[in-house]
Amino acid sequence: MSSLRVLALGGLGEIGKNMTVVEQDGRIVVVDVGLRFPTPEMIGIDLVLPDFSYLREHANEIEAIVITHGHEDHLGALPWVLRELAAKVTPPVYGGPLTMAMARSKLDEHKLRDVHLVDLAPGDEIDLGPFKLELIHMTHSIPDSCAVALSGELGTVLLTGDYKFDQTPVDGEPADVSRLAQLGAEGVLLLCGDSTNADREGFSPSESGVGPHLEEVFARADGRIIVTSFASNIHRVQQVIDAAAALDRKVALIGRSMRKNVGIGSQLGHIELPPGVMVQAREIDDFPDDRIVIISTGSQGEPLSALRRMAYLDHPQVKLHEGDTVVFSATPIPGNERAVNETVDRLYHIGCDVITTRDAPIHASGHGYAEELKLMLNLVKPRYVMPFHGDYKRIKLHGQLAEAVGIDAASIFRAENGMVLEIDKRGARFGTPVQAGMIFVDGVDIGDIADAALRDRRMLSADGIFIVVATISEQSGGSVADPEVIFRGVPFMDEAGELVDEIKDAVEDALESAFAEGVRELGVLSDRLHDRLAALVYERLRRRPMVLPVVVEV
Amino acid sequence: MSSLRVLALGGLGEIGKNMTVVEQDGRIVVVDVGLRFPTPEMIGIDLVLPDFSYLREHANEIEAIVITHGHEDHLGALPWVLRELAAKVTPPVYGGPLTMAMARSKLDEHKLRDVHLVDLAPGDEIDLGPFKLELIHMTHSIPDSCAVALSGELGTVLLTGDYKFDQTPVDGEPADVSRLAQLGAEGVLLLCGDSTNADREGFSPSESGVGPHLEEVFARADGRIIVTSFASNIHRVQQVIDAAAALDRKVALIGRSMRKNVGIGSQLGHIELPPGVMVQAREIDDFPDDRIVIISTGSQGEPLSALRRMAYLDHPQVKLHEGDTVVFSATPIPGNERAVNETVDRLYHIGCDVITTRDAPIHASGHGYAEELKLMLNLVKPRYVMPFHGDYKRIKLHGQLAEAVGIDAASIFRAENGMVLEIDKRGARFGTPVQAGMIFVDGVDIGDIADAALRDRRMLSADGIFIVVATISEQSGGSVADPEVIFRGVPFMDEAGELVDEIKDAVEDALESAFAEGVRELGVLSDRLHDRLAALVYERLRRRPMVLPVVVEV
Repeated sequence: MSSLRVLALGGLGEIGKNMTVVEQDGRIVVVDVGLRFPTPEMIGIDLVLPDFSYLREHANEIEAIVITHGHEDHLGALPWVLRELAAKVTPPVYGGPLTMAMARSKLDEHKLRDVHLVDLAPGDEIDLGPFKLELIHMTHSIPDSCAVALSGELGTVLLTGDYKFDQTPVDGEPADVSRLAQLGAEGVLLLCGDSTNADREGFSPSESGVGPHLEEVFARADGRIIVTSFASNIHRVQQVIDAAAALDRKVALIGRSMRKNVGIGSQLGHIELPPGVMVQAREIDDFPDDRIVIISTGSQGEPLSALRRMAYLDHPQVKLHEGDTVVFSATPIPGNERAVNETVDRLYHIGCDVITTRDAPIHASGHGYAEELKLMLNLVKPRYVMPFHGDYKRIKLHGQLAEAVGIDAASIFRAENGMVLEIDKRGARFGTPVQAGMIFVDGVDIGDIADAALRDRRMLSADGIFIVVATISEQSGGSVADPEVIFRGVPFMDEAGELVDEIKDAVEDALESAFAEGVRELGVLSDRLHDRLAALVYERLRRRPMVLPVVVEV
Repeated sequence: MSSLRVLALGGLGEIGKNMTVVEQDGRIVVVDVGLRFPTPEMIGIDLVLPDFSYLREHANEIEAIVITHGHEDHLGALPWVLRELAAKVTPPVYGGPLTMAMARSKLDEHKLRDVHLVDLAPGDEIDLGPFKLELIHMTHSIPDSCAVALSGELGTVLLTGDYKFDQTPVDGEPADVSRLAQLGAEGVLLLCGDSTNADREGFSPSESGVGPHLEEVFARADGRIIVTSFASNIHRVQQVIDAAAALDRKVALIGRSMRKNVGIGSQLGHIELPPGVMVQAREIDDFPDDRIVIISTGSQGEPLSALRRMAYLDHPQVKLHEGDTVVFSATPIPGNERAVNETVDRLYHIGCDVITTRDAPIHASGHGYAEELKLMLNLVKPRYVMPFHGDYKRIKLHGQLAEAVGIDAASIFRAENGMVLEIDKRGARFGTPVQAGMIFVDGVDIGDIADAALRDRRMLSADGIFIVVATISEQSGGSVADPEVIFRGVPFMDEAGELVDEIKDAVEDALESAFAEGVRELGVLSDRLHDRLAALVYERLRRRPMVLPVVVEV
């Protein structure tokens, strides 16, 4: 009996690194290949990817990759995944033109040039093995966002991607509710829907409501205006530019990703730059303060972002001063609150005015609220529901919304990463789970969470390291040079100088007694030194730096 | 001419580590001795204290220490400061009885037993050198909170401590507005007021409004109820106990600080335990789920707290399960959002219901909002104003509130830590600043921010460490043993095994060429090895671990 398998390798029980596998007759379509940013405990880690061992093991079964939209949590892992799979397969990648342009730019950075990226328009139908693929136009905080319909022998799986039902989007193209309703009428087997704002009641505000509020805020500013938002929120950037133009201000873009996204967005017609408005960063000082708007990256307080550098008076082109107004047209992503607050307080210290979403409605979320999730459920009328893109809380709440619109509790599958929903003619159930989890990107390499290096770095970062080098004679086994004691990162050693002498004495003593007992094996000597010195250091310092004895035989 | 000096060593341009010096005729009264908790960049640091070098240098001038209330950011640094000053002076410490009981408990933990702690009641007058000290009863999120009036030759300095004007506090004792008004009528020279909620409009809600909402939430729960809040918020704990008693539920306290604070609070009459309600943690399972309320620490998601351990199913006494309701009767302190969200999501994963302040008004801030700060200004009618306890933003906004009630902008002093406000008969102005900043507590020791160990730990935690030991002959200068290459915390070295051989070759090569050039000085050899190896490692790994060459001469 033919059966359909749907599983998420990321995005369940977490916000981020979305990656879904839809599978039938041994053929796989991967929807989204996203990443997450590390938490502070992940010391020295740059990025977190889904553990995609499952894809590696089934590489030859992969028919295609489909990307719903160009955000990092849906697209960002693509270079790493394609590089790992390249030995066996390089599947084609499908998505909207902006999404594919952003994918191209990412792959170029990783020097991955032989990937077949296919621009799709909503409504185009493509055969992908056992499935027909269709994209459905949706609204979100980046243009070209799509839901993905994969229709096969058993019915249609609809993956919403990230979405809201914005009735008045900036580009005048609301989500294609007609097509969703049509799919619903034809019968949707499984809905995998965005849960990000399942905990917010009502309907999300429209993106186009933000523009007039930005203009009001701008109108009250006497000096320069610096607006920060997500660089990929191209419609927001459009509205900032329009508000600036309406008030006869010039606009400069600051920050690499801001310039890049506006460049791509403008080439593809998603943003219209009114003639004579845009100026270069180096021209900012040529205009009076009340004639300038700067659009900058850094809305999340990111350490190397343009706004953060401005706030620390460390930006090469923009020197902030009293009278400047900084407008945060974004809310902090959970976890970034402290970094954002720090940036805001530095701005106050400089004497800037700071306007945030607490002061005016100058941000709108890109994710639909509870009523929109219900609308989606009612439009699509799915046989089964699998809430996606959310931590346990939001997945639970999304399930409650599905029950509220009349879906049978037994048809709602609250899953975790790696759990496999198996659907056949008899029904749907969870099967044997597959491997799922995190893999870390550190610099340009990837590794797994059990990496000993990470444990070592935690230890090093907590209490530092003691290195003791003992040199013994191959002939006599006795010490032939004064032991070297080196420490790095050990707190307050200034006050513990004599400890170094004690350690040297302990080394000599331990070597002598080992020698007397006939111990000559270097590994055993090292172990003995380690235990002796670790105990001594703990006794004296009440902390446990890494103790690393090196015994050299000459 | 006699002059008064007021300076903060902490609490300006930051939230936390409040510490103020009030000084006249070479005599010093210190008001509050608080600490802060470290940010994630402060790797391996446990606590942050104000840099109190100024007190160390003027130890013999210290007349007394006064503590406004028992929170860590006002009291927490007391043991460290007293220990450092002990060689020269052990000043008496004044405060309300609960505050002094909490101070005693803290000093006991540090084995500081010879400190003279003096219980003061509001209205008591004490001579402290050139000042008369009086405490004024205020309301805050811990009982026994007081403002401090220090009256001297030039007039009265009023330090509000943390406060709100709760008209219906749980213990029926509102802030002593009459005494504040009387001081105002007599003439207050300088007001140093709490700015924590200067950015919130209106009046803060009363603490006693929380109880009925807690009872409503409890009434809807079918299973066990776990309430988490700050352990020092004794009136909140009272309200939880009362709500539980009203619904005929037993109450157990979990978490060391919760039991300790309720113990002290109950001894001093700040909390009333209704007979037959309290049960021990080990008795919880003796009662049906719908007859139990557990009050627990962990409202901030603290890693070792009771609630966090429950959420990770790791608590010895409380095993959470589906049907339990967890009530967060607190909001996350900025910076703790992520830890709180993680805890909440673990609870959802277990199947608990979670109620936060987004669901019901079950928390009230202990700090007055903008209208209360204005009320304080109008009651006290100060000649000069120095906003206290706030980051730059809140200090700026507090200054604007002072202007709004008619205080001359030139009489409002927005200061930073270490800035000295000098007041004499001619007026007030900032004088020469004194040293201020942070000192770190790491384990039991204290050090300063410039500690090289912290820099090293950052580097170690980012990319790990390479240690290379080269052994050369004192006679010939040539290498006499195979170089040792050891690495710790360097990511993904599994895949770079041959790098170790390359490093060994580079060491031999560098030693040979140095030898050929006649370089014999060990320091120079080490430097050369360092540069050569750092370049090699970066070229191969594209990261910069600490490279530590050790040259041993035998």
